[in-house]
Amino acid sequence: MAVLHHHPFCPCSRFVRLVMAEMGMEMELIEERVWERREAFLTLNPAGTTPVLSEEQVTAVPGATVIAEWLDETRGLALGERRLLPDNPLKRVEVRRLMSWFGEKFAEEVAGPLVQEKIYKRFSGGGSPDTTAIRAAKNNVRYHLRYIGFLIRQRNWLAGDVLTYADLMAAAHISVADYLGDIPWDEDKTAREWYARIKSRPSFRPLIADRVAGMPPSAVYADLDF
Amino acid sequence: MAVLHHHPFCPCSRFVRLVMAEMGMEMELIEERVWERREAFLTLNPAGTTPVLSEEQVTAVPGATVIAEWLDETRGLALGERRLLPDNPLKRVEVRRLMSWFGEKFAEEVAGPLVQEKIYKRFSGGGSPDTTAIRAAKNNVRYHLRYIGFLIRQRNWLAGDVLTYADLMAAAHISVADYLGDIPWDEDKTAREWYARIKSRPSFRPLIADRVAGMPPSAVYADLDF
Repeated sequence: MAVLHHHPFCPCSRFVRLVMAEMGMEMELIEERVWERREAFLTLNPAGTTPVLSEEQVTAVPGATVIAEWLDETRGLALGERRLLPDNPLKRVEVRRLMSWFGEKFAEEVAGPLVQEKIYKRFSGGGSPDTTAIRAAKNNVRYHLRYIGFLIRQRNWLAGDVLTYADLMAAAHISVADYLGDIPWDEDKTAREWYARIKSRPSFRPLIADRVAGMPPSAVYADLDF
Repeated sequence: MAVLHHHPFCPCSRFVRLVMAEMGMEMELIEERVWERREAFLTLNPAGTTPVLSEEQVTAVPGATVIAEWLDETRGLALGERRLLPDNPLKRVEVRRLMSWFGEKFAEEVAGPLVQEKIYKRFSGGGSPDTTAIRAAKNNVRYHLRYIGFLIRQRNWLAGDVLTYADLMAAAHISVADYLGDIPWDEDKTAREWYARIKSRPSFRPLIADRVAGMPPSAVYADLDF
């Protein structure tokens, strides 16, 4: 069975869990506390970051987009209509553009600072949360929600007619901020409806069950009719 | 002809210039000063970042890795032995892992801070350079050089037997720090030899000709026998 080295609140790990569930793959999860810099984990991925996928054919595939490309290359064609990266190179550009938007830009401006300040610092003894960084993230998230709304008013899913990696990357990143109660859902009704559609998919259930010890999720986190 | 929106000292733009030259593609270069947030450019790429590729079939392909995947999907097979992303999915994992290493990790730890503090701030009026950030970058670069040396002692090129995107991503990022005189070439002899091999390729010549007004390159920058 495939093994995923992850952290429950690493947005990129959540993306891979969603992808594998959508592909019908079973997985064994191993939680990595990256700040501990466990030696065996650094051998697997010298960059020391989650997620890392291990399976029979390959010892280590590190990083959300490298894993996404690998899974598409080894399973994509067999998925037919449910393929998460379209066949057409032009459509692939749009999916990858939005994967990068949420996996890098949103990560840097919103999800990364929130997880770092509110969750990782709690466990790694990294000091008290930087409230300026948290405030900036909570402000930045608004224009990202409006951008999702803008796209969904033109399309069925973020990158086009069908569900793709772009939706899962965006939803994975939003989900950690939503756990923390930092998504202002009144900002954009269309974005909220899109997220409700993703959240009700079976692939999302394991994420909704995740909990941080001593830090319960926001009231809307597990609610499918938020 | 393909049009590349770039900045001469944006490492990711340099990567794409190297890739297109290696593929034998001609290109028209348009310099973008991203800090000016030119409206027509933001329409092309709402993320407001370079590089962005435009060609007949597609208005905008934004970002180094999205461009690399697009060029491989549209030209890769025709390149035969000179393909920059190998056919084998396992080998592609290693190339993409190292593209991410240099395009994200090295970028964040070395090239990004140096370009931001020493070059972009000069033109964007962003204040005086942050010497702490520069010092950290100049320290970080050492372990990256040792990592390149470690890989090249086992392989002909960074990701294996042949030149790939991984080498070009690494060299593009190193080249801007080298311009600024911030690469301690005595750190690792093998890394230096690898860089000398890349630097002597015809694809590298246009990069060696780039200059920042009022800021001449380091003594070794244009020297092929540094």
